[in-house]
Amino acid sequence: MIGLSSYAGVMESLMNSAEEQQASCPLANSWSKTQESSKNQKPKGVGGFVLVHAGAGYHSESKAKEYKHVCKRACQRAVDQLKSGALAVEAVAAALVELEDSPFTNAGMGSNLNLSGEIECDASIMDGKSLHYGAVGAISGIKNPVLVANRLLSEAQKGKLSAGRIPPCFLVGRGAHDWAVSHGIPPCPSEKMATKFSLSAYKRNKRKMELAEKMDTGHNQTKKRRQSSENEYGSGCLDTVGAVVVDLEGNVAAAVSSGGLAMKHPGRVGQAAHYGCGCWAENACNMNPYSTAVSTSGCGEHLIRTMLARECSAAMQSEDAHQALLEAMQNKFISSPFLASEDRVLGGVIVLRCCRCVEAQPSQNIQGILGKTLIVSRPIVLGLHATADGRQRFTHISRLPPGTVPGQSLAIEGGVCRLMMSPG
Amino acid sequence: MIGLSSYAGVMESLMNSAEEQQASCPLANSWSKTQESSKNQKPKGVGGFVLVHAGAGYHSESKAKEYKHVCKRACQRAVDQLKSGALAVEAVAAALVELEDSPFTNAGMGSNLNLSGEIECDASIMDGKSLHYGAVGAISGIKNPVLVANRLLSEAQKGKLSAGRIPPCFLVGRGAHDWAVSHGIPPCPSEKMATKFSLSAYKRNKRKMELAEKMDTGHNQTKKRRQSSENEYGSGCLDTVGAVVVDLEGNVAAAVSSGGLAMKHPGRVGQAAHYGCGCWAENACNMNPYSTAVSTSGCGEHLIRTMLARECSAAMQSEDAHQALLEAMQNKFISSPFLASEDRVLGGVIVLRCCRCVEAQPSQNIQGILGKTLIVSRPIVLGLHATADGRQRFTHISRLPPGTVPGQSLAIEGGVCRLMMSPG
Repeated sequence: MIGLSSYAGVMESLMNSAEEQQASCPLANSWSKTQESSKNQKPKGVGGFVLVHAGAGYHSESKAKEYKHVCKRACQRAVDQLKSGALAVEAVAAALVELEDSPFTNAGMGSNLNLSGEIECDASIMDGKSLHYGAVGAISGIKNPVLVANRLLSEAQKGKLSAGRIPPCFLVGRGAHDWAVSHGIPPCPSEKMATKFSLSAYKRNKRKMELAEKMDTGHNQTKKRRQSSENEYGSGCLDTVGAVVVDLEGNVAAAVSSGGLAMKHPGRVGQAAHYGCGCWAENACNMNPYSTAVSTSGCGEHLIRTMLARECSAAMQSEDAHQALLEAMQNKFISSPFLASEDRVLGGVIVLRCCRCVEAQPSQNIQGILGKTLIVSRPIVLGLHATADGRQRFTHISRLPPGTVPGQSLAIEGGVCRLMMSPG
Repeated sequence: MIGLSSYAGVMESLMNSAEEQQASCPLANSWSKTQESSKNQKPKGVGGFVLVHAGAGYHSESKAKEYKHVCKRACQRAVDQLKSGALAVEAVAAALVELEDSPFTNAGMGSNLNLSGEIECDASIMDGKSLHYGAVGAISGIKNPVLVANRLLSEAQKGKLSAGRIPPCFLVGRGAHDWAVSHGIPPCPSEKMATKFSLSAYKRNKRKMELAEKMDTGHNQTKKRRQSSENEYGSGCLDTVGAVVVDLEGNVAAAVSSGGLAMKHPGRVGQAAHYGCGCWAENACNMNPYSTAVSTSGCGEHLIRTMLARECSAAMQSEDAHQALLEAMQNKFISSPFLASEDRVLGGVIVLRCCRCVEAQPSQNIQGILGKTLIVSRPIVLGLHATADGRQRFTHISRLPPGTVPGQSLAIEGGVCRLMMSPG
């Protein structure tokens, strides 16, 4: 297994490189001043950007290649969409479909099985342009939960239903499944969604659980529960997938999809279906100088109670986004009063922010077109992992290195993320 | 029907009375300065407070008495709990049980029926002391959904499950039902939960819907959908119930419960089950000088997308909470960019804030005990209703009038709220 803890200590080097990069990006301070004047001008053919992750959890080393490949394919799918003129929300959905279709990720096909041996998926998507949102929770028998979330989003954008009924933005369980099928999304037999890997993991986990419960017998149940702090389901339990995209017009979108915690109770819904917790996307507006997109991964309950996606989005409106994001992860997540009773918190996040500038000077990550420029701030991937000894550390932090050019892709180990810039 | 619009124009008088009340409350500015020094001192027997609502929607005039009675009973239940030494979270759950048990409210017994003629309920509860949260969505066959939410909250506080599994904070559908039953909460046959009133409303709504769909036939579907903006399901469709409580130790809690929109799609989950949207409770801490509790009511999709409960809680940390709350309702709800595409927004909120002071002078709404004082800021009930002509107005705003004394109760028409101060 590749443990994220093997990446401890990267924080300091990030802090140093953040300073270096800020020095090499003289435009940073002019973003908020210049974007106002250009907001009504629609740039054409400005380079988009796609950033994908396959989870903040532990991954089998033997499957590292597969994770990288599926991340690359997901990026490519989104890039292809952007090239053909699709908006960010369509591109991000396309990336998620690829991630869900992989039997190696904990989303869609090959998801973790719940306590009853069934697959129940969560997914959500947010469009920074319309600020609409769609989500499904604990849905079974649908190969691509993100497509249901996306369809809920697009149906809600059409306005009210017959007789003035308000369209739903969040459906769960059997109702979500039936809504999907009635909207042309094909059902998929549950047995086809389980894989050899997910089934054997289920059997292994069930044995572990039964053993742990047998050991608990005769002890004080409450005390025992508090003591058994080690999560035996580290393997495969936190690897939610997600993506953030900015399209050629500068619109942002974000999505997330998950099979949820291994051995979760049937009906449990995690952050991937929770507004403000699994993903967030907000185009720049009068109040916000930057467009931001966020996708989270980790322990759903921790990410829900801290509303991490929205907190990270808000932090990125600061002039120094990198510092603000680190502070948000520290103060709003690791040291959050909402998680004070947790012995360790688990989560990671990919973020993207950008803004439009007029007459900006070209730099490494700027695509200048027709005097108007879309600046994609170097994306940041933050992975957090609090260690079993109670001390919490950043364990995986990475940013797109200087010199990354359109079309180039980059794999990030540990969190098994891959990111790619689309050709302008 | 009692329409909320009959209360238009109260805003101005509130603004005036807010000034008056501020003048009569010289302690307002000293709260944040004094609470720090008293946070480690545990006051005994400080008067608690209970505030209950039966929905921001329309209510049948013929049932006004019933609504007021059930609100009063709910308050009394919570007050009894507080008197017997219960914490805020238990008292708020007790109030909700009473509201759910009434066949006249859209929660628990007598809830709105969904498109398939079934009852599916949402509920959530938040404890300001532990900051824990529990929620159920689209749950059927359980008489008191709030008890399941409360049990999820208390189970999560016990720590991890066997083998280090993380306890869920949000369960939906069949899984939620089964979890409840396995934790000793008795099932209730669905046919017992429907009432004569809810069944006849369902038949009436179904006929209306079929008629509207027949009229749509042959027209451009998309255009038609956008035009049919009037919500035909005003009757009984928005009357979520909820309560906010501060206990004798100054801990706050909030809860909300709803049968959801009439004729909603099966599996639809509204704000009542959504973290940060249906209710919020946060004790004072280093970062927040005030303890706050919020419970919302209205169109679930609007309340979700604006995270109204959390926004109102944040606003109430301002020195001038009344003004901040009005601004939050205007800027974060009525004029929210997240609801820009909606022709009208629907929602209301009850809020409560308080803090502890040392050596405070007694005033109308202060219970002084042993030199330490719990100040319950006059609760505010805000009801919003955007009119069909597109102009949005405050239609129902009320605050506890000067001179209200412990044990006294007050009915608020329109939103059919009743609030009560418990004896110290």
